[in-house]
Amino acid sequence: MAKTEIPYKIYLEEKEIPKYWYNVRAFMTPHPPFMNPATLKPCTADDLRPVFCDEVIEQELNFTDPYIEIPEEIRNFYKMYRPSPLVRAYCLERALNTPAEIYYKFEGNNTSGSHKLNSAAAQVYYAKKQGLKSLTTETGAGQWGTALAMAAAYFGLDLTVYMVKVSSEQKPYRKEVMRTYGATVVPSPSNTTNAGRKLLEEYPGSGGSLGCAISEAIEKALTSDSCRYVLGSVLDHVLLHQSIIGIEAKTALDKYGITPDVIIGCAGGGSNLGGLISPFMGDKLQGKNDIRFIAVEPASCPSLTRGKYVYDFCDSAKTTPLAKMYTLGCGFMPSANHAGGLRYHGMSPVVSQLYHEKKMEAVTVEQTKVFEAAVMFAKTEGILPAPESSHAIRVAMDEAIKCKQTGEKKKILFGLTGTGYFDLAAYKQYNDGTISDNIPTDADLQKGFATIPDFPINN
Amino acid sequence: MAKTEIPYKIYLEEKEIPKYWYNVRAFMTPHPPFMNPATLKPCTADDLRPVFCDEVIEQELNFTDPYIEIPEEIRNFYKMYRPSPLVRAYCLERALNTPAEIYYKFEGNNTSGSHKLNSAAAQVYYAKKQGLKSLTTETGAGQWGTALAMAAAYFGLDLTVYMVKVSSEQKPYRKEVMRTYGATVVPSPSNTTNAGRKLLEEYPGSGGSLGCAISEAIEKALTSDSCRYVLGSVLDHVLLHQSIIGIEAKTALDKYGITPDVIIGCAGGGSNLGGLISPFMGDKLQGKNDIRFIAVEPASCPSLTRGKYVYDFCDSAKTTPLAKMYTLGCGFMPSANHAGGLRYHGMSPVVSQLYHEKKMEAVTVEQTKVFEAAVMFAKTEGILPAPESSHAIRVAMDEAIKCKQTGEKKKILFGLTGTGYFDLAAYKQYNDGTISDNIPTDADLQKGFATIPDFPINN
Repeated sequence: MAKTEIPYKIYLEEKEIPKYWYNVRAFMTPHPPFMNPATLKPCTADDLRPVFCDEVIEQELNFTDPYIEIPEEIRNFYKMYRPSPLVRAYCLERALNTPAEIYYKFEGNNTSGSHKLNSAAAQVYYAKKQGLKSLTTETGAGQWGTALAMAAAYFGLDLTVYMVKVSSEQKPYRKEVMRTYGATVVPSPSNTTNAGRKLLEEYPGSGGSLGCAISEAIEKALTSDSCRYVLGSVLDHVLLHQSIIGIEAKTALDKYGITPDVIIGCAGGGSNLGGLISPFMGDKLQGKNDIRFIAVEPASCPSLTRGKYVYDFCDSAKTTPLAKMYTLGCGFMPSANHAGGLRYHGMSPVVSQLYHEKKMEAVTVEQTKVFEAAVMFAKTEGILPAPESSHAIRVAMDEAIKCKQTGEKKKILFGLTGTGYFDLAAYKQYNDGTISDNIPTDADLQKGFATIPDFPINN
Repeated sequence: MAKTEIPYKIYLEEKEIPKYWYNVRAFMTPHPPFMNPATLKPCTADDLRPVFCDEVIEQELNFTDPYIEIPEEIRNFYKMYRPSPLVRAYCLERALNTPAEIYYKFEGNNTSGSHKLNSAAAQVYYAKKQGLKSLTTETGAGQWGTALAMAAAYFGLDLTVYMVKVSSEQKPYRKEVMRTYGATVVPSPSNTTNAGRKLLEEYPGSGGSLGCAISEAIEKALTSDSCRYVLGSVLDHVLLHQSIIGIEAKTALDKYGITPDVIIGCAGGGSNLGGLISPFMGDKLQGKNDIRFIAVEPASCPSLTRGKYVYDFCDSAKTTPLAKMYTLGCGFMPSANHAGGLRYHGMSPVVSQLYHEKKMEAVTVEQTKVFEAAVMFAKTEGILPAPESSHAIRVAMDEAIKCKQTGEKKKILFGLTGTGYFDLAAYKQYNDGTISDNIPTDADLQKGFATIPDFPINN
């Protein structure tokens, strides 16, 4: 029974926090398996065990169970900041003068400032349950590192975060949040690992890269039996944990009898988008709805729209298993002037597969237009959005403006993944008029594609 | 009828956003009136009209109506971030192993990051209703300026914020949030006003003070008929607007049949504390409860606990009306090493009166212990608190620890006024071990007291 008046914020009750994650893979054509780059055979659990936690590996390889139980300890952690609000963007609708209904699921309502905490809590809990003592990870902009530091502090595990050196210098306060939560933050490249020392020898004074930070974090994890590495996006288990976003959004909309016409999410590694769309996509794959799904990526890093669907490394240092995904090449680097996040060269295999099968669309947006949308959103809706999230805002606004022209009363749902409180250097660039769009040329892309490994599985 | 199981977060429904502010003065002995420093007679509405909005002046002088209606336009603004959550601090209780129940009303759940938005929205709305075009204010740490920038953007008024120059340099990102919301941020002292130019002549290269920024903002407001000055704390109308904190907290607790044994709030100018306690104090003054109220101030700026109850200027430039309040002298400056906010020399006349009549208590806490509590809170409750709010956390934790010793199951409510996302320079000092307690000596206090005006009304 649909209620009639929709409030600005639809909060679920605590007891409505989902008890199960939604495994959309159970309804999909299975995506091609991760490959061991040494053998070029599908990765087994044993291949992954030295690096990842056991339970996480099991989830990574589970393509069949549609529902996977969320342990009570994780649900208790979620109670600190979940259920997150589903917001009806009345103020934005009025400002756009659109007949469309705009909804957003807001995941920035916690100190880490983004959805990353959903998977961080799960991964740290499983590590603790396995008797591990410490974890390592890498972080670029710092959202994932912060989320993991919060979860590690709560569950009492040690955490070492390899933070891309140039980021740790540009975002000293992000580093400080992690330190406050007790994490050790090591600017990467560092002299604490072989990978770091090697890079420093070759490039003294290097500002680092995500690829090198990943290599350092994995190397550190491999040095101890009681330590593992954790990753905040791309992989299937991360999307699984993020499905809580979509489940809550669907539960809230169902209360008011609303099925979105279109669901929009920004896409870097794909974890937020994959999580948001999971239960809606599962229904679509079962013929229960006809929702349009739109992945939004920055014009400066267009993996879905201009990339190749091939096997590639997940990191630029070429140390990880190979994933079949849309990729710009593991050596592709978006312009240093790109402030808006979503800098990953590839795309989650789940999202890649859905896009490849035309179950969803993808569009790119330019950075200046993204920040224009961000500022309008901040002024009308009262939330300063993360630049990443603002990619979705831009396209949601464009869809709503189209409705104004056609008179359609479309129901638009998008994911507001986080807040921009630690991205004010980027906003300053925008306010100062020094932001640029950084669209790679075809020649730039060719250079990236040249770094895709030339393995037989790609031929 | 009390429900039994209390969730982590008690959210009220949107329709439960209060329709009236609570005017605690209706139940109090009226505090001594503001005085015109030129005539030493009580300020009239006409005295205040060139500086403040008409409706705000009416509220300032209304000592009799217990309920003052919140206009629908302001309530619509509140819907963007209110009702704010009342949180049961289960995780903190477990960490402290206390039999006490700890609750906090969290006001940091909006982009301005603090409760200041509650009064900003009201003041900007009244300015708009009066047909004004622009507003001015000063800001130190930046919370008030940010809140006002958000409200001004929403209601479409121009805003000029005079930001203490040293703060604008130390907190460039605070400034950037205000710019993003369209405010003009002028580092003070500036050469845009006589007050600024005079100070710059006397002290070239000065980093500014809140006193000078207030003088510049008032001077700017006086230059135009369509411009007024707005203030974010201390005054009665600000406490009135902040009463929404207490009303919502009381409504949420009432649902579960809970009356707090003790209510704790940090106190700088007194607006958050006054707002939080208002409806509970009103009941106490009518003999309906016997709650203990505790104001917490920093040991470095102890206006209630070591100040004098006399008439003093509200600003250090001696341009405002005189208020009867606990004060350290309008020329008192807390140590520059004090990172924890709450730097105001005086205290709201309402809070001062309540304290003077022994309706409430006051304690001081030292900065190192405040940050210890802040970090423990962040790790257990998952919210990085503002240093200001952490003063209340410290005392709430101390009360809960006492309960552990006595076995009492006290119900403790405190105000968590905001988040510390823009205070990470202070956390860095703490993490680096360079924070200090900065307790003023008696000689320091004497220097401050010497700046209290020697008017006959003080003899």
